[in-house]
Amino acid sequence: MDVYRTIVTKRDTRDYEERTIADDVLRRILQAGRMAGSSKNEQPITAIVVRDGEQKAALADCGDFTAHLPTSPLVVVIVRTEGSRPFDAGRTAQNMMVAAHSWGIASCPVGIQHDDRAREVLGLPADQIVAMAVTFGYPTGGRPQARGESRMPVDSYAHWERWGQREP
Amino acid sequence: MDVYRTIVTKRDTRDYEERTIADDVLRRILQAGRMAGSSKNEQPITAIVVRDGEQKAALADCGDFTAHLPTSPLVVVIVRTEGSRPFDAGRTAQNMMVAAHSWGIASCPVGIQHDDRAREVLGLPADQIVAMAVTFGYPTGGRPQARGESRMPVDSYAHWERWGQREP
Repeated sequence: MDVYRTIVTKRDTRDYEERTIADDVLRRILQAGRMAGSSKNEQPITAIVVRDGEQKAALADCGDFTAHLPTSPLVVVIVRTEGSRPFDAGRTAQNMMVAAHSWGIASCPVGIQHDDRAREVLGLPADQIVAMAVTFGYPTGGRPQARGESRMPVDSYAHWERWGQREP
Repeated sequence: MDVYRTIVTKRDTRDYEERTIADDVLRRILQAGRMAGSSKNEQPITAIVVRDGEQKAALADCGDFTAHLPTSPLVVVIVRTEGSRPFDAGRTAQNMMVAAHSWGIASCPVGIQHDDRAREVLGLPADQIVAMAVTFGYPTGGRPQARGESRMPVDSYAHWERWGQREP
């Protein structure tokens, strides 16, 4: 699929088929995340692959809106070093999700970073923080974009030179 | 270019030719950012397009490591609503940068969010915050990845089920 079309058609989707994500695909998803740039190339981001049922259930207890987490074939927890930028975690996650979308795999970020229990479940060292969990799976019904979330109009999204200034 | 290859070959690059980025390309870069998902689809992110020389110079005064900002053909300032997640700003920026890379345009995030003067220069309302600036331009010498930043080994990047656990 064309890069631009892949990017603009990606929708956050939580309903997945049971179908497993193959190991070589998982490896490329991780590689997409690993190659994301970071501030001063400090590489504060790492990833924890979670496929074990008990681990997924334990993580689901660590946040709201996590009902789909135990049924997701793959969960990747994005971890960042304390003091690093959540912005860089977003870059990483988007790389993973856009790559996955290009192979027909849907995904959705899930917040479990507000709960210290997630740190325990994952066995994080003191200087590591959960940035976000991301669920992955083949979308139910085979449609990569099940929910066509609307977006604000371009004129509200883009400002020119200064806030509130319209296109010249 | 293949989606996966585009994603993994993207390098943050600050050295650009003077060549202008065409309006239709700019529009697609903005659209790539606009279509990035956000927590609960709250859409806290907006973008300010900066191409005016004085505005670029003023922004360069608002951060460190901004020397290349005045010579970048295009600066897009990613703005977020107070209380929103910088993570979502990272998703937006990555969408823009990967799309741009697919058209041979290099880019680099630049931190100007630590300086209240940036808010003044951009005329932001009280509830809006600079998340990051991103510079764009055709890379000097026509090479999309001028600096091949190294990355930590995959074995350090990816953990399995729990922090520190190696691949099963």
